[in-house]
Parts: sequence; structure tokens; C-alpha cells
Amino acid sequence: MNNHRLSIAEASEAIRRRELTPSELLESHLKRIERYEPDIRAWVTVDKDGARDAAARLTEESEQEHFRGPLHGIPVGVKDIYYTAGLRTTMGSPIYSEFVPAKDSAVVSALREAGVGIIGKTETTDFAYTDPAATRNPWNLQHTPGGSSSGSVAAVASGMCPLALGSQTGGSVIRPAAFCGVVGMKPTYDLLSREGVYPLAWSLDHVGFFVRSVRDASLVMGVLMGDEMPSMDNSLAGPPRIGLLKGFFQDYADDVVWEGFMKSVDELKEAGAQVVETPLPDSFSVVHSTHRLIMSSEAASVHQDNFRSRLDDYRRKLRGLVASGLLVPASAYLRAQRIRGRFIEEVRRTLKGLDCLITPSAPTPALLGLESTGDAAFNSPWSLTGFPSITVPSALTNDGLPLGVQLINLPHQEETLLSTAMWCEEAFGSRLWPPDYP
Amino acid sequence: MNNHRLSIAEASEAIRRRELTPSELLESHLKRIERYEPDIRAWVTVDKDGARDAAARLTEESEQEHFRGPLHGIPVGVKDIYYTAGLRTTMGSPIYSEFVPAKDSAVVSALREAGVGIIGKTETTDFAYTDPAATRNPWNLQHTPGGSSSGSVAAVASGMCPLALGSQTGGSVIRPAAFCGVVGMKPTYDLLSREGVYPLAWSLDHVGFFVRSVRDASLVMGVLMGDEMPSMDNSLAGPPRIGLLKGFFQDYADDVVWEGFMKSVDELKEAGAQVVETPLPDSFSVVHSTHRLIMSSEAASVHQDNFRSRLDDYRRKLRGLVASGLLVPASAYLRAQRIRGRFIEEVRRTLKGLDCLITPSAPTPALLGLESTGDAAFNSPWSLTGFPSITVPSALTNDGLPLGVQLINLPHQEETLLSTAMWCEEAFGSRLWPPDYP
Repeated sequence: MNNHRLSIAEASEAIRRRELTPSELLESHLKRIERYEPDIRAWVTVDKDGARDAAARLTEESEQEHFRGPLHGIPVGVKDIYYTAGLRTTMGSPIYSEFVPAKDSAVVSALREAGVGIIGKTETTDFAYTDPAATRNPWNLQHTPGGSSSGSVAAVASGMCPLALGSQTGGSVIRPAAFCGVVGMKPTYDLLSREGVYPLAWSLDHVGFFVRSVRDASLVMGVLMGDEMPSMDNSLAGPPRIGLLKGFFQDYADDVVWEGFMKSVDELKEAGAQVVETPLPDSFSVVHSTHRLIMSSEAASVHQDNFRSRLDDYRRKLRGLVASGLLVPASAYLRAQRIRGRFIEEVRRTLKGLDCLITPSAPTPALLGLESTGDAAFNSPWSLTGFPSITVPSALTNDGLPLGVQLINLPHQEETLLSTAMWCEEAFGSRLWPPDYP
Repeated sequence: MNNHRLSIAEASEAIRRRELTPSELLESHLKRIERYEPDIRAWVTVDKDGARDAAARLTEESEQEHFRGPLHGIPVGVKDIYYTAGLRTTMGSPIYSEFVPAKDSAVVSALREAGVGIIGKTETTDFAYTDPAATRNPWNLQHTPGGSSSGSVAAVASGMCPLALGSQTGGSVIRPAAFCGVVGMKPTYDLLSREGVYPLAWSLDHVGFFVRSVRDASLVMGVLMGDEMPSMDNSLAGPPRIGLLKGFFQDYADDVVWEGFMKSVDELKEAGAQVVETPLPDSFSVVHSTHRLIMSSEAASVHQDNFRSRLDDYRRKLRGLVASGLLVPASAYLRAQRIRGRFIEEVRRTLKGLDCLITPSAPTPALLGLESTGDAAFNSPWSLTGFPSITVPSALTNDGLPLGVQLINLPHQEETLLSTAMWCEEAFGSRLWPPDYP
């Protein structure tokens, strides 16, 4: 029984054919969690009872040939900054260690409607910033899984669930997905509701998720956007036209990343993609400081009351972020928002005539040690624009750590982005799976 | 020849019937300006040549039975913060005294398309804040016409043009319209493009305009929204249901204003309106400080560079606004924006089951002297929400100064707002006209 390795598409098909029940699928994953959670530490809370109840109900529905769609019976992990009704939601912080929301967040509620079972709450860095969680990378337990969606990504990568919710303010979906060899997606800003998701910096916060294939990502997007499952296969007229960003990305990437990335780009070319070197817009030079200033200002606004009354419960990095944010003048914040507007316009022009932009998903592979969740510098520009991005596993380093490529497209062009990503995924060939957690 | 007293609807009808040409209409207004501008001082620039060229072209089109719609041939005054291609645009400030834009602002461009002729640029307070312009109130030259859209309102009130553009960040459309006995309208935030309008505080800035009847306002809205002229007459099923706001409004209004207002409310009741006393939402108590904080922060962001290099060109009130805005921390600005969100939700609930809210349009009639443009406290709450508002002349004080009532509705409910306003206008009876400028 390798149910834990089934993709959403495969599991969904098996449930629909009545070859597999939601309860059986859940039990496979619960077993998996029981066995590997002590290594991986992906979960804050595993809600066995709740998940079993939901699976039983969904199994009954299946037996009556009532299927809620492609996510019917799929067990899902939820990052612990998403409110879950009756289920403790800690934000990764002692301040909320006993907090039990009365209501589900909008996305959790939509997923439940679509027939998923919430298997539990996954580890997050404190308030989804960069102070690391306890979670380890299934590819090498000595390495970070990335963050802030650390538990979600590790759970999907190690076969504890086929779908988990994350969120991205800087690079908290794309980077950990690349570090752990899974697909991570961050749709257009505000496309998926942030209602009931604890904010880090609300004008940058994106709902996102982890799966193990681009097809699964398109299934999830279809459900969350309330559409029919989009037919991805034929939506590209031919091989994609991809804009290759060098400059900062080349300079800032580790050699092992850049070499691996250029090899992957060659694979795309060999498969027929048109890869066009595309210059970075002028305003790119101030993107990271602009992002940081907006993030710190908004985080300071979110945390200023708790920061006064419970300063000791703030860890070092978030403490620094909030403290610096409290010093930002409104005029500087507003200027940053205007620079952001200019950058968005410039990236929009850059994307003209292209199906997407491509960069490495992170400047390094998963870092050794758990002190740092890695660097978001390759992701935060697209959190700043709010444009949709996705990472696809592309290769392994000689040390056996995954690399990914990040694709970016225009707002609300998720369908082209997914089609292109699927095309790239095929070009890269076989899926990655961590050898110690097969 | 009383062409200058024609409403847009009347002039439009006469042009369509070929009883009046755009050129004749323009000349009536130019004569009017020549005669009374030395008293009123409404204009920064009167573009006789440009307006005559436009009128000649539009006259030619009329002769060929080509009419561009209800604004065909209507002369329009434009507040001097709207960019006008080739026509000096000073923002009421020495800093821009020689500035000639290359392009029209979006609204001016749309109006030209619709067949208006731009008669010239009207006086504005410095950068549309509260340092007074030289304009006088046609009802009594010793009194302020209100601001910041001082020239536009005085031009319409004294028959120099039947339509003029204004803008409102606090109360710069509704208040001057009430002070001068005309109809002023501020549609939903962002419904009309602010492109090419010099910002005061962009999250509060509204495009607005002055006309002499609610029917004219609905004609202008129809044109600017690119629709057919909406048929207003039958869109109310019966007499409106109006929410009466007291509390702060009663306490803060001059006695003469509140007495006049309650008389007008009685007239509405006698005409059959249901008037329901409606409590102010809790968050109303912090609305004015919230508005001020957002306005000062954004104004500081707009002006910070000029403020450094040309401080001497800033007058007292704007100087104070920018200086205080430069001291606001981003976290306070962001908190204010969140309070704003709560207020918007509360007002939305307040409006449930009502066709509109009603208040006096200003706490005082037009003030004696030109030092102050009056108090925006009755208008700024609706600039903060971005909800559409309109003022309708309702009465005269014993001193012969106009009073108006302000109606407010939900976002994008301009049609109900206009229908209700038209109903109120009819209940109040005859139009007001300044006796010295008949």
C-alpha cells in the first residue's frame, strides 16, 4: 500500500472508482505521520478524531456515489496561522498558544466544502516570519525545510498529506517548496481570500499551497476558484516562450544553484521552449528595500499592541522587524508603495509577449542547520508585485538536495502559468522523492 | 438672452433643436465672465481662443446633425489641479505657476470627447487644501465661496458656466456647493479616474463637479460613466426612506443651520418621505482624527521633495498639514486605515434598508471673510468611506445665504442617490439664484 505516494489526481480517481475510500486514504497518512513525525516535526496538532470523523462522512458520501469534486476525501494539512473552527491555532507563538478560533478561515471553509478532511495544523515560524520552527527537511534532517510554511512543506514532501496550505509574504511558499522538492504555488494577490489568516504584512500576504505535481496544483486552483477543473493539457498553443532573468539572480545565486538552473533551462530549450534573455526593469534595484520597508511597517502595525505587553514572547528576528517597522515614517511607507506601483508597471511591460519569467526558486539549496529558513530574495519581488508564481522541482544537487525553478506570470494568468509549469515539469522528467522517506 | 441661466438639460435641448449653437452659448458665458469676473475672481485662466475654436467645431457638428450627447456644446470650467493639455495648470501654487501639461487628465479628456468646450481653469486653494483662493461668494462678496474648489463653484453659481469640475478630499465639493446654492456631487471613490489630477491625499481624493440641478448631475454622471443618460424619473418606487443623522451633526451645527435643516427635513416628511432617526456608528467618534491622520500622511508623501526645496512657497495651512504628516509613523497611518475599514463596514450596516442618509451640508452658512474656506467636518466622514454624496440647495438664511442638505448612499449606488436627490429637490421647490448676479 503506497497510498501516501498518490497524487491528488490519482487518489481522487481511485476514490471515484470506489477502489479507495477517504477513510483508507486518511489511515495511510496517519500511519505515515505516526512513523515519521518524530523525525520531521511537521505538526503542531494532528486532529485524528476530527479527521477520522470527516473521512467517515466522506466515505459514506462516496458509497452513495456522491462526490464533491476532485478534492473529495483528500487529507489536508493547514499552516497554523489559518483559523480552524474548534482547532487550536497558535500562529507559532506562545502568545496564541491556547487560542481556539470559533470560525474557519475562508480558504479552509472552501476546502471543507470541496470535501477535504483537515488532518491537522502544521508548524509555522512565529507569525509566519523567519524565526525558525522545529521542522526538518525530509531530504536531510540536518537541513532546514525553509519557512515560514515549514510544517506544510515537510508534510507534503514526506508523504504525510498530498496537499497543505501555506502562505507567502516574502518567499514562504516558493522557497520551502524548492528546498523540499515539491510544487509550491502562490496565486495572484487577493485572488484567494486572506480572511481568517493571521496577517504578517497584509498588502504582501498571499494564500498559497504545496502539492506534488503541477496537475495537482491546477486541481486545487480549480476548486478554490469555484470553477470546473480547468483542462490544462491543451491551453498552450505550442512550446512556451519564457523570459530568462539573469543579472541580480545570477550574481546572488550560489554556483551550484546557477549551474543547476542553467542546465534546467537547457533542458527546456531542448524540449522546444523559446527562452529569451530578458533584462530586469530599472526599479528592480530598490525592490528588496521597498519590500522590507512595507513588510516592517505593516508588521509593526499588526503587532504594536502585543509588542508592548508581551515583548518577551517575540523572538529575535520578528522583534527586529517590528522594532524597525515602528520607526518608519508614514511618508516613507507611502513612497515605498508608490515605488511598488512603478515596479509593477515595469514588470508588466517586461512580460509582454512572454508566457512567463523564469528564475531559480532560491539562491541556495536548503541550508545546513535549522537556524535560518533561507533567503527570500528571489521570491519577494513577486510578493511585492502580487503576480502569481509557482515553483517546479527541476534537479538534485550532488549532495542530494532538490532545486526548483520559479515561474512568474501576469496577475490572473494562473491558467497560462500552470500550463507552462506543467510543460516544464514534463521536460524535467521524473518526480523527486526523498530517499529516506520513500 | 438669459442663456447663462439655462441648465445643461435646457441648453442641450435647445442645441439639439438647433435653436441655439454652441458658439452662441459660449459667447453668453464669456460675456458673463467679462462682466462679473472682477467681482467674483473665479478664474485663473479664461481660454477664450481655445473655447471659441472648440465651440465653432461643435457648432459645425450640430449643423450637420451630429450631436455627441447631452453635453454637446456645454462650456465647462475646470479646477486648476486637473491637467489640461497645452493650458497652464497651476495647482494654485507658485511652484507650478508656469506648468503647462502635455496631456489632459482622464476626466477632462472624457468630457472633451462628449462634446464640452473647456472655457478655462478655475481658482483652487493651494494644492486643493485650505489656504484660501481669491474667489468670492456670488451671494455676498464679503463671504467665502468655500473651498478648495472655490472658482468652480462660484463660476457655476454666478452663471459663468453650467458645469465645473471640482475635487473633494475632505469637503471641497459638498461644502462650497452648499455655500453657493448649487448642486455638488462626489461619486464613489475611484469611480471617476483621478489620472492627471494633482493629488492632495490619494486614498481620499475624489473627482466631483458642480451643476445647478440634480437632473444636470445625472446627465453628467451618465456621460462620465459612459452609459446612456439614465432615466431618473421612475427609479424610486415611492417616496424615499431617509436616515436622519443627529448627534455630532446637531451638536456641531450652528443654530441657524440646524433649524433650517430641520425645517427642510419637515418639508421632506410633508412630501411623503419616511425619515428615520439613525444612530451614528460607534467608530464615528474617531472619524475626524482618522481622516486627518491619513490626509496629512499622504500629503506629506506627495509634497516631501518640494517641501524641502521650496518651503517658502507653502502657505500656512498646507505647511502645517505636511509638517505634521512628516511626523506620522507608518504604524499609526496603517492603524488609521484599519479604523477606516471598520467605519466603512459600520456605515454600510447603518444604511441597510435606507435610500440614503441626510445631514446638513456644512455646520455653518458661508463664513464672513475670505480667511477660512469653512469647516469640512460634515463631509470628511464620507470622503473617508468613499461613499457617494451630493448636496442639494434647500433654503436661504435670513441673511440671504444658501443652505444645503447632504445625502449619502452606499458605494456605486449613484442612481438611487440621484433619484432621491431629485425627489428632495422637488420637495424643496424653486431653485436658488444669487440676487446680485441674476
